Amino acid sequence: MTNVLNSAISSTVNSNNIVWHKTAVAHAERRAMHGHNPCVLWYTGLSGSGKSTIANAVDRLLFERGCHTYLLDGDNVRHGLNRDLGFDTASRVENIRRISEVSRLMLDAGLIVGTAFISPFLADRALARSLIGDNFIEVFIDTPLAECEKRDPKGLYQKARAGDIKHFTGISSPYEAPPAPEVHIRTTELSIAEAAALVLNALELRQIIAPAQTE
Amino acid sequence: MTNVLNSAISSTVNSNNIVWHKTAVAHAERRAMHGHNPCVLWYTGLSGSGKSTIANAVDRLLFERGCHTYLLDGDNVRHGLNRDLGFDTASRVENIRRISEVSRLMLDAGLIVGTAFISPFLADRALARSLIGDNFIEVFIDTPLAECEKRDPKGLYQKARAGDIKHFTGISSPYEAPPAPEVHIRTTELSIAEAAALVLNALELRQIIAPAQTE
Repeated sequence: MTNVLNSAISSTVNSNNIVWHKTAVAHAERRAMHGHNPCVLWYTGLSGSGKSTIANAVDRLLFERGCHTYLLDGDNVRHGLNRDLGFDTASRVENIRRISEVSRLMLDAGLIVGTAFISPFLADRALARSLIGDNFIEVFIDTPLAECEKRDPKGLYQKARAGDIKHFTGISSPYEAPPAPEVHIRTTELSIAEAAALVLNALELRQIIAPAQTE
Repeated sequence: MTNVLNSAISSTVNSNNIVWHKTAVAHAERRAMHGHNPCVLWYTGLSGSGKSTIANAVDRLLFERGCHTYLLDGDNVRHGLNRDLGFDTASRVENIRRISEVSRLMLDAGLIVGTAFISPFLADRALARSLIGDNFIEVFIDTPLAECEKRDPKGLYQKARAGDIKHFTGISSPYEAPPAPEVHIRTTELSIAEAAALVLNALELRQIIAPAQTE
């Protein structure tokens, strides 16, 4: 038995790549198994704009179509991978960089990845786009500040106005709206279902997923 | 239309979890769709022991059984997510922590994740195990140092012996073998196919995957 492994391994000495390609599962194979192409849906918008709500609605629709998806958000990233990061500028950039890199790995695994973070700065989202490459789909959840502040589901705007939270996006820190997002969702004009349908439509147009079956 | 979104969002004010559970795709649902349970196969062993070779062989077998898998290794992690880390002690711990956290996210996505890193220290692997929880399967790729050094597929042992690489595992830095790995692969006694079959068998025993169909 020793010889079998030795000869297989020693054949990698001069041709490591050959053995790799023989055994490794190729991207095209993964894609074919999933039945859809991978992509990253990068949701951006103010706190309370509806990013998570819409991202989850999209996730549900994709799931019902048999797609393999995953949603990265504050809940599963800030308390895990990025728990060592604060909210200063360097940490903010590193936060987005790591989210981008994890998205890239999941893209490589063949998933449709959603990321739901405020990600208020153009430069940070440009970094994400450059790291992820093609199949980066920016989804701007466009809700006016006044509307977000009125909803204030977590009471954060109230705290920010009172000065209890510093550098709060929209109040004491800028939100740089995407000038040309792949998908632009004006939430005051659309229902959640309509918003989610817009995202699905964008995925169909880009041939990430097949068009819905019609009767 | 405004009212639809507003009422949906405002219903989250006092019951954020309810809306989340209504729309979010549950773990059990993902699991059912994948047709297998998720787990992390944590390969550990000396440089040149055959971790990547065996991990890729396992990946191929799982793929052929219709499983959704992903393999984290130096190629896709060190040059991406962990590109900012060096090889000092703090970086080494952070390297393993991030790999564990990414594995945990992929586990959450329903994948069978493989991680192929030397991961020489007991404490680091104990951290990985504690972060990942159940479904952490340690696979010890047990190849004697002399054998790894004889293979030396990348010429690293030669460089380490010459003093050109410092803190090289097995030469100038210890390898702490797992005392009780879930799977123990003695590569000098097994072919690659036999080694991979041992891993698949462990997954069947733990009901991560269904037993292979017999004629």
